[in-house]
Amino acid sequence: MKAFSLQQHVRFGHVDPAGIAYYPRIYDYVHEAFEELWDVHVGRRYYHLITEDGLGFPLVHSEVDFKSPLRFGDRVIVRITCFKLGTSSLGLRYVYTVGETVCLDARMTTVCVRLKDLASIPIPDAYRARFAQILEQS
Amino acid sequence: MKAFSLQQHVRFGHVDPAGIAYYPRIYDYVHEAFEELWDVHVGRRYYHLITEDGLGFPLVHSEVDFKSPLRFGDRVIVRITCFKLGTSSLGLRYVYTVGETVCLDARMTTVCVRLKDLASIPIPDAYRARFAQILEQS
Amino acid sequence: MKAFSLQQHVRFGHVDPAGIAYYPRIYDYVHEAFEELWDVHVGRRYYHLITEDGLGFPLVHSEVDFKSPLRFGDRVIVRITCFKLGTSSLGLRYVYTVGETVCLDARMTTVCVRLKDLASIPIPDAYRARFAQILEQS
Amino acid sequence: MKAFSLQQHVRFGHVDPAGIAYYPRIYDYVHEAFEELWDVHVGRRYYHLITEDGLGFPLVHSEVDFKSPLRFGDRVIVRITCFKLGTSSLGLRYVYTVGETVCLDARMTTVCVRLKDLASIPIPDAYRARFAQILEQS
Repeated sequence: MKAFSLQQHVRFGHVDPAGIAYYPRIYDYVHEAFEELWDVHVGRRYYHLITEDGLGFPLVHSEVDFKSPLRFGDRVIVRITCFKLGTSSLGLRYVYTVGETVCLDARMTTVCVRLKDLASIPIPDAYRARFAQILEQS
Repeated sequence: MKAFSLQQHVRFGHVDPAGIAYYPRIYDYVHEAFEELWDVHVGRRYYHLITEDGLGFPLVHSEVDFKSPLRFGDRVIVRITCFKLGTSSLGLRYVYTVGETVCLDARMTTVCVRLKDLASIPIPDAYRARFAQILEQS
Repeated sequence: MKAFSLQQHVRFGHVDPAGIAYYPRIYDYVHEAFEELWDVHVGRRYYHLITEDGLGFPLVHSEVDFKSPLRFGDRVIVRITCFKLGTSSLGLRYVYTVGETVCLDARMTTVCVRLKDLASIPIPDAYRARFAQILEQS
Repeated sequence: MKAFSLQQHVRFGHVDPAGIAYYPRIYDYVHEAFEELWDVHVGRRYYHLITEDGLGFPLVHSEVDFKSPLRFGDRVIVRITCFKLGTSSLGLRYVYTVGETVCLDARMTTVCVRLKDLASIPIPDAYRARFAQILEQS
């Protein structure tokens, strides 16, 4: 199984007085990683997906384990795999590690929709093929 | 069962070009509601909990259903109950509604820790009693 | 001269490891205060201004003095006055105080535009009258 | 005169319903660019500046011209120069362009302080030399 990996930086303004990433910021990281997955792995700019294809992937369910805090100065590696690839439904898993330590394990389930009416539609085949490449073995 | 309710506003800067609250913002709402729960329902300012008691409640697990989008201009009601009250573990549920529509159902599990070393400790009795008041019936 | 005053709270997630409000957050406070000014002082919901009037007030210039840090737990008072009321141009001043201490003095110049093409237009009279009420004496 | 340049991306969650970057986000970009300036141009990680040197550069004054909106999908170039290099005072200018268009011109004045008591101190020579390299000609 392939995975898509990306490095992200925990910056000064992202952490709270305890020196730990304020958790809403973590969802910013996840969204940024999601956009990068589109731009680089899928090869379709997320910007074009929205503005030209008129498609979006709103979140319908998220489940996140916070295993170890992300701290100021961490240069985190996130590894993205696909845990669900339904007709319209797309489940992506984001595992964040600092060195050997798993800090965060996030499973985000989205649905492919037409933006004009938010109706769910099948994930287009060209995109589906890319997510199949990072599909977790069951 | 009692619950603690609070109104929150979906502002212009919180929504994306589709007019829907950008989901990392939603975790900002949840954290703000959590601080208000301390200040108003528990009756201990969250600020004093951290700076005087030296206690914190870092998140260990979150599970969120996004049922209906929050939109610019919505004046959302969030209703907070407790779904888990262990020795150190505190599970709070945040149900967001706009009119009759449930938009978001978030279950956030935190652990009571001493901030100086992040060691988990029992939830102090005075605080436990307040969370017991909003405990969901099993 | 009247002014419009509002209380805002510096929350845990808004401050950095030095315990001081991370400055991009301060612009969130200013924008929130701007929306409240519309809703409460002008008496036109900012939401309706945008969605029904099709008007907006994008920022063209900002000038901010950071005089004293805002800290976690501060319950700040912001006092809004108008320092410029041109045909299309609207300059609002936001002075933040904690007790006797002035923490922040922000002058934000916006322009009234039609959202459909971002063309500048005169500030409608009904709104202009409200800003005149909080106009600083020269 | 040298300048330090960096590319930044305007992402989906950064823009408002008008498709324009929500302005508090712009200060996030500026802060991120500031951290990169330290890490790459100065050659001292901002993280180490804070945690090992015990130094910080809080903002005392900001002046920003918003000339043209930043939009979703823009891959902006920011060019950083130094417009003031006093004993303790450091003024950095961030000019953001998209293609030939200047979108933003921000002048941020900071002061070098010891974090333990926020007392202003002279900018250390090794760092001063780096800022001198990007000093604007008067």
